[in-house]
Amino acid sequence: MYFHDKRLQYPVRVETPDPLFARQLQQAIGGVEGEIRVCLQYFFQAWGNRSPNPKYRDMLLHTATEEIGHIEMLATAVALNLDQAPLTLQETAAAASPVVNALMGGERPRHVVEGMLQQHLLSSGLAAMPVNSDGIPFDCSHIYASGNVAGDMFANVTAEATGRTLAVRLYNAAKDPGMKDMLSFLIARDTMHQQQWLAAIEELGGPAALPIPNSFDQSLERQEFSYVYMGTNVNGEPPPEGRFNTGPSMDGKAQFSTIQSTPLGEAPVLGPAREGSGAQAEQIGKL
Amino acid sequence: MYFHDKRLQYPVRVETPDPLFARQLQQAIGGVEGEIRVCLQYFFQAWGNRSPNPKYRDMLLHTATEEIGHIEMLATAVALNLDQAPLTLQETAAAASPVVNALMGGERPRHVVEGMLQQHLLSSGLAAMPVNSDGIPFDCSHIYASGNVAGDMFANVTAEATGRTLAVRLYNAAKDPGMKDMLSFLIARDTMHQQQWLAAIEELGGPAALPIPNSFDQSLERQEFSYVYMGTNVNGEPPPEGRFNTGPSMDGKAQFSTIQSTPLGEAPVLGPAREGSGAQAEQIGKL
Amino acid sequence: MYFHDKRLQYPVRVETPDPLFARQLQQAIGGVEGEIRVCLQYFFQAWGNRSPNPKYRDMLLHTATEEIGHIEMLATAVALNLDQAPLTLQETAAAASPVVNALMGGERPRHVVEGMLQQHLLSSGLAAMPVNSDGIPFDCSHIYASGNVAGDMFANVTAEATGRTLAVRLYNAAKDPGMKDMLSFLIARDTMHQQQWLAAIEELGGPAALPIPNSFDQSLERQEFSYVYMGTNVNGEPPPEGRFNTGPSMDGKAQFSTIQSTPLGEAPVLGPAREGSGAQAEQIGKL
Amino acid sequence: MYFHDKRLQYPVRVETPDPLFARQLQQAIGGVEGEIRVCLQYFFQAWGNRSPNPKYRDMLLHTATEEIGHIEMLATAVALNLDQAPLTLQETAAAASPVVNALMGGERPRHVVEGMLQQHLLSSGLAAMPVNSDGIPFDCSHIYASGNVAGDMFANVTAEATGRTLAVRLYNAAKDPGMKDMLSFLIARDTMHQQQWLAAIEELGGPAALPIPNSFDQSLERQEFSYVYMGTNVNGEPPPEGRFNTGPSMDGKAQFSTIQSTPLGEAPVLGPAREGSGAQAEQIGKL
Amino acid sequence: MYFHDKRLQYPVRVETPDPLFARQLQQAIGGVEGEIRVCLQYFFQAWGNRSPNPKYRDMLLHTATEEIGHIEMLATAVALNLDQAPLTLQETAAAASPVVNALMGGERPRHVVEGMLQQHLLSSGLAAMPVNSDGIPFDCSHIYASGNVAGDMFANVTAEATGRTLAVRLYNAAKDPGMKDMLSFLIARDTMHQQQWLAAIEELGGPAALPIPNSFDQSLERQEFSYVYMGTNVNGEPPPEGRFNTGPSMDGKAQFSTIQSTPLGEAPVLGPAREGSGAQAEQIGKL
Amino acid sequence: MYFHDKRLQYPVRVETPDPLFARQLQQAIGGVEGEIRVCLQYFFQAWGNRSPNPKYRDMLLHTATEEIGHIEMLATAVALNLDQAPLTLQETAAAASPVVNALMGGERPRHVVEGMLQQHLLSSGLAAMPVNSDGIPFDCSHIYASGNVAGDMFANVTAEATGRTLAVRLYNAAKDPGMKDMLSFLIARDTMHQQQWLAAIEELGGPAALPIPNSFDQSLERQEFSYVYMGTNVNGEPPPEGRFNTGPSMDGKAQFSTIQSTPLGEAPVLGPAREGSGAQAEQIGKL
Repeated sequence: MYFHDKRLQYPVRVETPDPLFARQLQQAIGGVEGEIRVCLQYFFQAWGNRSPNPKYRDMLLHTATEEIGHIEMLATAVALNLDQAPLTLQETAAAASPVVNALMGGERPRHVVEGMLQQHLLSSGLAAMPVNSDGIPFDCSHIYASGNVAGDMFANVTAEATGRTLAVRLYNAAKDPGMKDMLSFLIARDTMHQQQWLAAIEELGGPAALPIPNSFDQSLERQEFSYVYMGTNVNGEPPPEGRFNTGPSMDGKAQFSTIQSTPLGEAPVLGPAREGSGAQAEQIGKL
Repeated sequence: MYFHDKRLQYPVRVETPDPLFARQLQQAIGGVEGEIRVCLQYFFQAWGNRSPNPKYRDMLLHTATEEIGHIEMLATAVALNLDQAPLTLQETAAAASPVVNALMGGERPRHVVEGMLQQHLLSSGLAAMPVNSDGIPFDCSHIYASGNVAGDMFANVTAEATGRTLAVRLYNAAKDPGMKDMLSFLIARDTMHQQQWLAAIEELGGPAALPIPNSFDQSLERQEFSYVYMGTNVNGEPPPEGRFNTGPSMDGKAQFSTIQSTPLGEAPVLGPAREGSGAQAEQIGKL
Repeated sequence: MYFHDKRLQYPVRVETPDPLFARQLQQAIGGVEGEIRVCLQYFFQAWGNRSPNPKYRDMLLHTATEEIGHIEMLATAVALNLDQAPLTLQETAAAASPVVNALMGGERPRHVVEGMLQQHLLSSGLAAMPVNSDGIPFDCSHIYASGNVAGDMFANVTAEATGRTLAVRLYNAAKDPGMKDMLSFLIARDTMHQQQWLAAIEELGGPAALPIPNSFDQSLERQEFSYVYMGTNVNGEPPPEGRFNTGPSMDGKAQFSTIQSTPLGEAPVLGPAREGSGAQAEQIGKL
Repeated sequence: MYFHDKRLQYPVRVETPDPLFARQLQQAIGGVEGEIRVCLQYFFQAWGNRSPNPKYRDMLLHTATEEIGHIEMLATAVALNLDQAPLTLQETAAAASPVVNALMGGERPRHVVEGMLQQHLLSSGLAAMPVNSDGIPFDCSHIYASGNVAGDMFANVTAEATGRTLAVRLYNAAKDPGMKDMLSFLIARDTMHQQQWLAAIEELGGPAALPIPNSFDQSLERQEFSYVYMGTNVNGEPPPEGRFNTGPSMDGKAQFSTIQSTPLGEAPVLGPAREGSGAQAEQIGKL
Repeated sequence: MYFHDKRLQYPVRVETPDPLFARQLQQAIGGVEGEIRVCLQYFFQAWGNRSPNPKYRDMLLHTATEEIGHIEMLATAVALNLDQAPLTLQETAAAASPVVNALMGGERPRHVVEGMLQQHLLSSGLAAMPVNSDGIPFDCSHIYASGNVAGDMFANVTAEATGRTLAVRLYNAAKDPGMKDMLSFLIARDTMHQQQWLAAIEELGGPAALPIPNSFDQSLERQEFSYVYMGTNVNGEPPPEGRFNTGPSMDGKAQFSTIQSTPLGEAPVLGPAREGSGAQAEQIGKL
Repeated sequence: MYFHDKRLQYPVRVETPDPLFARQLQQAIGGVEGEIRVCLQYFFQAWGNRSPNPKYRDMLLHTATEEIGHIEMLATAVALNLDQAPLTLQETAAAASPVVNALMGGERPRHVVEGMLQQHLLSSGLAAMPVNSDGIPFDCSHIYASGNVAGDMFANVTAEATGRTLAVRLYNAAKDPGMKDMLSFLIARDTMHQQQWLAAIEELGGPAALPIPNSFDQSLERQEFSYVYMGTNVNGEPPPEGRFNTGPSMDGKAQFSTIQSTPLGEAPVLGPAREGSGAQAEQIGKL
C-alpha cells in the first residue's frame, strides 16, 4: 500500500510562464515516452512478478513509487506554465504591445492562443491532463509487462532511453531557469533508471538470458535460421556488413551469417467461400 | 520501393483447423508484440534515419521487408484455422456427436462459437484481421521510432523479446504439426532479430552509447542523482541489494549507491483560479 | 431539430433469449459496419453539406433520422436477449439439467457465462452498449464526411454493403423467429440504402463524377500514370488480366494498360541529425 | 511525493483459482468504473486544483494515494486467480475427468481456455493487465479533472457509484470466500468515497453551488429556457410528470415547467463549396 | 423511432467567421464534455432502462432527442466559422494587409492556418467533425449507462456540469454576437439539464438512494470501513477537517470519522512461474 | 513474401522545407484517407480472399505492394520538410529578421514552432510518424476487409476517392515545386486506383453484384421495404425528388418509391431489473 508527502520530490518553479512549454511538457506526462507509462509499467511488472525470489518485485516497487512523484512534478510544472495563459483572443490583444496591436488589427498575437493545447483552455481549466503534447490521451496498451522478467527489463531500458531523449529535447527547448533545473533532475533520474535495468539484465545472466525467453528448448526452433541475417534487396545486392551479420552471435552460441531471402513456401490456397458466409456468389462458386 | 512473390517465405499448413487457435494467432498479427508492429517500426525507423552513414537505414529496410512476409504467413494461418469454423450454433450442433447432443439439448458444444473472436464470424468472413487475440485493433502509437538510433535498437530488442515470448507461448499451445512447424521458423527468426539489434548496440559503442542520448552534456544533469538507487519504503527499510545498486555503473562512469527518498521540494501552491475560467466562485475567491 | 415516437420502427420480439446472440448483435450497433456509424455519418454529411443545391443535404437528413430508430431496435433486441442471462456461475449451474450437472461437477455449463460479453454482465446491467461484438467501443473516426459528395456516396455504399453483409450473417446465425423477422426488415432497408446512394452517384454524373474529386484539373496530374496498372511481382510475372487493366477506362477518358513497376526516384538522403536534437553522437557526426 | 509498504491494504486470498473470475476482476482494474480511473482522476484533480484554500487538494491526495493500493489488491487477486489456469487445450484435457474426456473427444472442457482473456495467456504470463474484462486497455480520456471543483466532485460520485455497482456485481458473481472478503472491503470503501464527495458538494454550498459553474452570471444565459423541460414527442403527447418538471427548481431560483419543443431557428444555408477545396464540381456550382 | 424538422432548435448565425473558434467549438461536439456524449448517453440509458415504471425511460427519450438538435446547431456553427478559412498559406498572404505582408515576407499571417485543426482543411472540407478541439475522435466508451438509474443520474449531472463549464468557457472566448447568442441558449439548457437529473435523484430518494446501488445488503460489506476517511500522509499528519470526515454521514446511517491508513494484509506471494509459460528460467526456478 | 529496392518509386525533393507542410503531409500517411490504410487494407483483403478464382487476390497483392512505396515517399517528404525546423523558440528568434524580432520582443515568430506537430519535435526527432495531421495515430480498425469481394471493392473506391481528395487538397496547399511534382504522381495513381476497383465491380457483374451480398436469397427479406425511400420529416413534408426515389432501382429488380415513416412496432417493455443485478431497489420493484 501507499503513502504520500505533500512536498515534491524536487523543486518546481517557473519564472516566466509559457503556455507552449506547458503543451510540450505534456509529452513527458502522457506521451508514450512519459511518466504515467513508466509508473504503471513498473507497478504492473511488480504486482505480477512470478519468481522464487522476490528481489525484482521489490526493486520495481521502489522505482514505480518514485515515478508517481515525477508525474506530480510535471503536472505542477504544466499548471505553473499555464498561469498567465490567455483565456480569450481579446485578452491576448490587451496583453500585446500597442505597436503590435496596431499592425495586427487589434486582436493579435492570437497565435499564442492558437498554439496552445485547446484542451488546456477548454477542458482542464489551465491544468495538466494525462495526454501528450498534441492532446492525445495516454492509453494503457503501452504498459509492457510480459511475465518474462528479462523482456521486461529491456522494455524498461527502452522506456527510459526514449524518456531521457524526450527530457533532453525539453531541456534544450526550455528557456526558463526553473524548468531547466527541474529537467536536469529528471534527466539524472533517467540516467540512473537506464543503468538500473541494464544492471538487472547483467544480473539475469547477460548473454545467458538470451534468447528471451531462455526457458524454451532451442532444439525445437528451426536453428538454421536462428543466426542468419536475411537480405531482401530485389536485385540481390548484399546487405551492409556489420556486427549484426559477422562474427560470433551475441549469445555465443553460433556465428552470424547472411543469406538472400527466397520463398520456401507455396502460394496459399484458401479455396472458395462457404455458403451462408456473406460472400458474393462468385466467391462461393455459385456464378 | 517494393516487390512481392506470391509464395510464402515459409510453408504454412494446418491439418486440423481450430478457430480458437485462429484467435490466439491474432495476437501475433495485431497484438503489441506482433508482426504489424515490428514491420512498421522498422520501416519508420529506416525511412526517418538521420546519420552521416546509411548503414542502419539499409539494415532496417531488409528486415522490415522480411516482416511483411511474416504478417502474410500468420494471416494465412488464421484463415486456414477458420476453414471449418461453425457459422451458427445450429451448425455446431450438427457437427457434435449424438450423445453430446442428447445431453446438451441439441445445440451444443456451442462453446466453440462462444470462444471465437466474434469479429472472425461477423466482420471478416473467416479471415485474419489486424487485431489482437481479444479483437482489439492494432494502433500505430506502438511504432517506436524516436530519432535516436540507440534507443530505437533497444525498442527493437524489446519488440523481439516480447515477440519471441509470444511465439513460444503459441508454440506450446499449438497441437497441429503444421502450426508447430511454422512457429519453429518464426521463433528462429525472432532469435536472430534479438541478436541483430543487440549486435547493433554493441557496434554503437555498447557502454559508450550510454546514457541514451549520448550527445547530451552530462555536466548539465544533476549528477548527484545520476547513479543512485532511491528507496521509497515507508519505514525506511533498505531496498534489496543487487547489481543495480552496487559496484560500478554500467557505463563505467560512477559507482552505484542507494539512498532513501526524501522530499527536496515544497508543497506546490497554484493559487486561486482566474475570473472567467469556468471555476466555482470559491476557487476564484469570490465566496 | 428532432422528435421521437415511443414506438419502434418495426416490431422487436425475442422468444428464446440468448446472451451469445446479444453479443453478436452488438456488432450491428457499435461495429464499424453498424448503425451508430451510418447514423452519425449521414448526419455529419448532411450538416456539413456545401452545395448550391440543398437536395443531398435533405436526402441525407431523412435517412440519418431513420437510422436512429435502427440503433433503437437493435438495442432493444440486445436487452431482450439478455433477459435470462446468468448473473453468476452458480446460477448457471442451477439452470442446467441434473445429468449435465452431475457430469460437469455441479457448476456447468459455465461456458454460457464465459461466452458472454463480460461488460454486459458487469458494466451495463444486461443492456446494450455502444460497442462491437468483442466489446470494443465505437469511435467516431469511422464517420466519413469528406466534404466531397461523390466520395461520401461511395463511403455510404460501402457502409451499407458491409452493413448488409453483417445483417445477413446475423440472420443466418439467428434461430429465434422474432430475431429473424427483425433482421429481414433491416436487411431490406440496407438493400434500399445501397440502391439509394448508388442512384445518387448516377445522378451526380456516374462516369462524369470521376475521378473524384472531379473539380481538379487533370492536366496537373502525371497522366502517364493515371490509367496504368502497375505490377510489382519480383520476377516480372505479369499481373492477371481483367477489366481493371484492359479496355477503356471507367471514366471513358483513356485505355487501361499494364506496366511493371520500376524505381523512378533515387535512394533518399536525409543527412546527419542536428546538434541538440536528441540523437546519438554518431548520428550527428560527432563520433 | 510517494512511499510504499510491501504489505497490502487488506488481505487478498484465493482458495479456488478461477480464470474466468480473473477476467471479470479486470473490469475493476482497467474498466471505466475501475480503480486506475479513480486513482489517476483524484491525482490529476489534486495536482491541478486552483483555489485560495488547499483543503480539497489535500483531501484528494489522501484518497488518490489510497486508491493505488486498491489497484494493487485487485492485480494480486487476478494473478492468484490465474494460478492454475490451463496454458494449452491439451493441459485442459488432462485435468478433466475421464468420463467428460470420453464424451468430449479427449480435449475438453476446452471452454475454460476459450472463456479466458486470451491476453492473460499470451501477453501477461498469467498476471493482471491494465485492461477491462473484455481486454480493452484503459485510456486516460476517462480522467475527469475539469478545473471546476464542484463538477469534479460530481464526477467522483459517479465514478464511485458505478464503481460500487461493479463491485457488488463481482461480489454476487464470486464464489471464493477470499474474494468475497476482499470485495466486502472494497465495497465499504466505495460507500465511504461516495459519501465523501457528496459531503464535499454540501460543503461547497449544495444548491448554492448550482448551476455549475456558479461563477457565470446567469443573466447572460437565455433564462426563459433555464428551468424548462422540453418535450420532443412527435405527437405532442406530454412528457411524464415528475420532480424534474414540477415544483421549485433544485437551486431554488425558479419553478420547473414543461413545453413542447419547436424550431426557433431556420434551416441552415452553408452555400456552395469553394474552388480548390476538393469538392465535386456540382458543389462549387461549376456544373 | 425518430423524425426531423429541417429548421434548427435555435438560431445559429456567425458575423465574423473565425477558424480558431471553429476549432474550439469542436470540443462541444466531440469532446468528452460534448453533445454527442450526452445524446448517446441518454439514448442508451433510455433504451436499456429496466424498471417496473417506464417514467425515466420516457424522460430520458425526450432529452436525448433534444440533444441531437444541439449537435446539429454546433455542427452548423463550426461550418459557418470555417466559411472564409484560408485553404493555403498563399491565400493567407493575399488576405493580409500590405504592411503585415511586407514585414512578414509575403506569406504571413500563416499562423491562422497553423492554428486550425488541420483535419478541417484536409479531411472534412471546412465542416464539423465528430472530434474534439485537438482533433481527437469521440469514442463511445464515454457513454455511461450502468443499468443503475441513480448512478446514471449522477453521470448525467456530471456530463451537464462539465458541459456547462465548457459552454461558459466558449462563451467567454467568443467575440461574435451570433455565437454568444447561441451559447447563451445552450448554457440555459445545460442549467436545466443539471437541475433535471438532480431532481430525479431527489425523486429516487435522495439519501435513501445511497449508497449506490441501494439494493445491496450493507451488512455484507465490511462496515467498519464504510464511513471512515483514511489518511495516507507518510508522517501521520492528520487530513484536513471538513464535512467529509465529521458529522453524520450523508445517508444518515453513521458518523464520519478519520483514521490513518495501515496495512491489514501481508506482502503478496505469487510464487514461481510455470514451466511452459514463456518466463525466464530463473523465474521457473530452473537456474 | 516481399523484396525492396532502396530507390523510391518516384522522385521526392523539397526545395524550401516547411514544418507546417510536414504536418499536413502526415494526413496522407496516417490519416484515415492515407496510405497506411490502403496498403494494409489491400494486403488483408488479398491474404483473406476466398474464391475459386485467385484473380482478385493476385490483383490486390500487386497494388498493396505498390502502396508501401507510397508511404515511403511521403515519409521521406515529411523528413525533408522538417530539415530546418526550429528545435526551440530561441532558435526561431535567431532565424527571424531583425525588424520582426524588434517588434515581437525577441522571441518570435514563435508561431512556426506553435504550428508544428509537437510530436515531430519531441518524439520522432524531425521524422515522419504513423499519425495524421493532428497527431493521432492510425488505428487498424480502418482496414476494411469484409470477406465479401464486392463490398471490399466499394471500400477501396471510397479509400481512393477520399485519398485523392486529400492529395488534391495537399497539392493546392503546396508551394514547393518538388512537393507539387510528387503529389501530381500520387494523384495520378489515385485516379488509376479508383478506376481499377470500379472496373472490378463491373467485372463482378455491376448491377448483378447487388444487393451486396448477392448470395442471400432476397425472398427472405421484407421486400416491401427494399426499394422504398422513407421520409422522416415531422410535418410529413415530402423528401426531395431524385434518382434515389424515382425510376427503376439500380439493380433493375424494382421501381423506387417514397413513403412517410410510421412506427410499425410498439413501445418496448423490458420489465423490472433482476435481484442481484446491481440496480436500484426501485428498478427491482423492492421499493
